[in-house]
Amino acid sequence: MPKVNPRNAFYAQSGGVTAVINATAAGIIETARKYKKNVGNVYAGRNGIIGALTEDLIDTSRESSSSIAALRFTPSGAFGSCRYKLKSLEENRREYERLIEVFAAHDIAYFFYNGGGDSADTCLKVSQLSEATGYPLQAIHVPKTVDNDLPITDNCPGFGSVAKYIAISTREASFDVASMAKTSTKVFIIEVMGRHAGWIAAAGGMASTVDTPIPILVLFPEVAFDREKFMHKVDRMVNEHGYVSVVVSEGVRGPQGNFLSDQGLKDAFGHAQLGGAAPVVAGMIKDDLGLKYHWAVADYLQRAARHIASKTDVEHAYAVGKAAVKMAVQGDNSVMPAIKRVSNRPYRWKIEKAPLNKVANVEKMMPKSFITRDGFGITKKCREYLEPLIRGEDYPPYKNGLPVYVRLKNKQVKQKLRTKFEI
Amino acid sequence: MPKVNPRNAFYAQSGGVTAVINATAAGIIETARKYKKNVGNVYAGRNGIIGALTEDLIDTSRESSSSIAALRFTPSGAFGSCRYKLKSLEENRREYERLIEVFAAHDIAYFFYNGGGDSADTCLKVSQLSEATGYPLQAIHVPKTVDNDLPITDNCPGFGSVAKYIAISTREASFDVASMAKTSTKVFIIEVMGRHAGWIAAAGGMASTVDTPIPILVLFPEVAFDREKFMHKVDRMVNEHGYVSVVVSEGVRGPQGNFLSDQGLKDAFGHAQLGGAAPVVAGMIKDDLGLKYHWAVADYLQRAARHIASKTDVEHAYAVGKAAVKMAVQGDNSVMPAIKRVSNRPYRWKIEKAPLNKVANVEKMMPKSFITRDGFGITKKCREYLEPLIRGEDYPPYKNGLPVYVRLKNKQVKQKLRTKFEI
Repeated sequence: MPKVNPRNAFYAQSGGVTAVINATAAGIIETARKYKKNVGNVYAGRNGIIGALTEDLIDTSRESSSSIAALRFTPSGAFGSCRYKLKSLEENRREYERLIEVFAAHDIAYFFYNGGGDSADTCLKVSQLSEATGYPLQAIHVPKTVDNDLPITDNCPGFGSVAKYIAISTREASFDVASMAKTSTKVFIIEVMGRHAGWIAAAGGMASTVDTPIPILVLFPEVAFDREKFMHKVDRMVNEHGYVSVVVSEGVRGPQGNFLSDQGLKDAFGHAQLGGAAPVVAGMIKDDLGLKYHWAVADYLQRAARHIASKTDVEHAYAVGKAAVKMAVQGDNSVMPAIKRVSNRPYRWKIEKAPLNKVANVEKMMPKSFITRDGFGITKKCREYLEPLIRGEDYPPYKNGLPVYVRLKNKQVKQKLRTKFEI
Repeated sequence: MPKVNPRNAFYAQSGGVTAVINATAAGIIETARKYKKNVGNVYAGRNGIIGALTEDLIDTSRESSSSIAALRFTPSGAFGSCRYKLKSLEENRREYERLIEVFAAHDIAYFFYNGGGDSADTCLKVSQLSEATGYPLQAIHVPKTVDNDLPITDNCPGFGSVAKYIAISTREASFDVASMAKTSTKVFIIEVMGRHAGWIAAAGGMASTVDTPIPILVLFPEVAFDREKFMHKVDRMVNEHGYVSVVVSEGVRGPQGNFLSDQGLKDAFGHAQLGGAAPVVAGMIKDDLGLKYHWAVADYLQRAARHIASKTDVEHAYAVGKAAVKMAVQGDNSVMPAIKRVSNRPYRWKIEKAPLNKVANVEKMMPKSFITRDGFGITKKCREYLEPLIRGEDYPPYKNGLPVYVRLKNKQVKQKLRTKFEI
C-alpha cells in the first residue's frame, strides 16, 4: 500500500490579541508535530482568516522548535490577527466557499480557529458548509478572549493575565496614592477594558485582600452610573482611609444608557475629542468634591503584559491548543475545548469538549451574584472564581533588561489557486 | 565613664514616590541597625517633612527586621510622603527653627532626606541653619526621583524602574498593534511622565533593539511639537511597517510653548476637561491621517510598578541609603551619596560623596546628544546610558497571584513638645 500523507491543518488567530494567544498557538503546533502520522503541516493564516481568504498561508513547519516554544512566552498574535467578521452564509456564501476552496487546494482537513464569540460563529458556519458541500473538514474552535464571555468554558484564555495585570496595577497604584494622599492625590482612577461585561473591572477589586485591604470602588458596565451615589462613596472612603482607588470599565454607561466616556468633548476649535471614561470620572470628582486625582488608561498594556502573565492562564492557553489537536486527531468536528473547573481548593481543572452550536452566539455575562449589593464591589463568590485564574507567575526570559519575545519567519506557503479574492 | 546613648536619626520621604524609595528606606534602617553604637533609633517622618514639623514621628525600631527587609520589594512611600516645599529661610525661618526644635527634643543628630531637587534644597538649608544656630546636625540628602534630574549622580534611584516599565510596556503594546494593524489599529500612543525632561520618554525608545526592531516615534518635552513633521513621520512609518508606536511625554509643548495636553477641552456643558497628551495626539492622527489608533496613559502605574522593577535600580536605591548612614557615621554633613558610573561594559558603579551645595537647585537636563537629529528618537549614546539602568529583574514574592507588599505598623514616637505647629 502506498504511503498516504497526513492531511494538513489550518490555524488562525482572530480578534483582539492577548498575552497568551501565542501559547495556544504553541500548544497546537507542538502537539501537531507530535502527531505527525495524523496531522501534516500546520498552516497559519496571515492576519487571521484573511490569510485563508487570500490564500496567504504561513508554513509553520519552517519554524524551529525553539521558535515555536518561544511562542509560549510571547504576547500578541505571531501570525497577525484581524477584525474581520464573515457575513452570514446567506449574505455572503462566496466567502465560505472560498475558504473551502483554499483548504481543498492545500489539502487542509483541520480548521483551528482561535478567538472569541464571533470566530466561534464563523467556525460553526464553516463546519456546516463543509458538511453541506461534502468537503471533509473538522472545524475546531479554540477559545481566546480577554472579555471572558464565551459560554460553557469556565473561563477564557487571555482573561486571567489581564485580570492579574489589573489586580497588580491597582494594588501598586493604590500603595502610591496612599503615600501621597496627605498633601496631594487622594483619588486614583484606572480605566480598564470590557465594553459589555465587568469581568476585567472585577479583577481590579482583587487588589484588595484580607491581608492587604485597600479602599476600592469598581464601576461596572452592568451597573448604571449614579453620580450622586458614587460621589457619596468616594467622599466617605477618602474621609475614612485618606484615599480611594476607582476601577472604571470603559463600558460604564450613565442612566440614559450613553457611554460615560462619550461626553461630547470638544477642543478649542470645536473638534470632537475622544476621551476615556477615566478622565471623565476624574473631572466629575474634581467638580463635585474638589479632590486631587490622578488617572491612568491601561488600554493595550493590560492585554499585552506578558511580563506578568498568570501562570494558570498560560497553562490554560497551552492546554486548549493541545486539546484541540487531540480532538482533531480523534475525529471530532464542530467542537471547542472548554475549561472545566473541578475544584477550587486546591484549584483543579480539566479540558472538556463543548459542542460548537452551544458556544456560537451565546455571550456569558458576569453573574449578578458577583457584584456587591451597593454596585461598587465584588462579592466573595466573585473572588473565589477569579483567584485561581490570576495565580502563579510565568516570567519570560530577559536580555539586557527587556523580555525576549520571538518573531517568526512567517514564510508563505506557495500559492496554488489562480483566483484572487478581494476582501 | 557613664555610657552615652547614641543619638537618633530622622528619615523622611519627599515628593512623588517610586517603586524603590522603600528600598532606600531599608538601606538606611538596616545599616543604622548595624551601627547601633553610632546611631540610635531611626525616626521616620509621617508624611515626610510634615511629620517633623508636627512632631509626628514614626518609631522604626518597633518594626521587625523582616518588615524592614520587605521594604526592599515594596513600592510607594511606607511612611507617607508629601508635596510640601519649605519656603526660603528669609520667608519662613520659623519652619526651619521648628525642625531644629523637634530634632532637639528627640535627640536627633542625623537628618536623612530622601527626595529630588526640592528636598535637596531643603536639606541644604536645614544644614545651614543647624550650623548657624549651633545645633549639631548632620544633614544628608538621599537621591530619589523618577525625573532623573539631579546633578552629579549618574542617575537617580526610581528612574531605572520607570524606564524599564515603559520600555517593556512599549515593546509589548507594539507587538500587540503589529498583530492588529492589517484591519484595525495602526498607531499606538503611550503617554509617559516627565514634565520637564524627556528621560522617561527616551526609555520608550529602548523598546526597539537590534534584535527586535520596532517603529517608534518619541515626542520629547525638549523638542517643540511640529504637527506636520510628526504626521509625515507617522504616515511614513505606517506605510513602511504597517504600524507605529508613539511615546509621548506629558510635558510635550507646541510651538507656542503651551502643553499639548492643554487643548482647552470642554464637555457638553462647557466645563473645562483635563485631558492627557496621548488622546490629543490620537485625535490629531485621526484628523490628519484617518488612521485607527489606541492610546494609553500609564500615570502612577509606571512609577509604582515594583513587580517589574529594575534590579540595577533596586541595588542603587538600597546602596544610597546604606551609604548615607555610613557617611553620617563618618561625620559627614551637607552631602549626598551619588552614583558614579565606572564603566559601561561590564556595567560598574560606585557611590561617591557629592557636596549638597552643588546639588541643590541644579536641574540636570537630558543632553542634546541623546536625541536624534530628527527629534523623534534616541541616539546610541542615550541607549548606552539607559541600558544598564533597566537591566535585571528583582521580583517581589507573590501570594495567590498578587505581590506581597509590606505595610508597617508605623507607631508614633511619644510627643515631647507642648507646642503645636500649623502647616
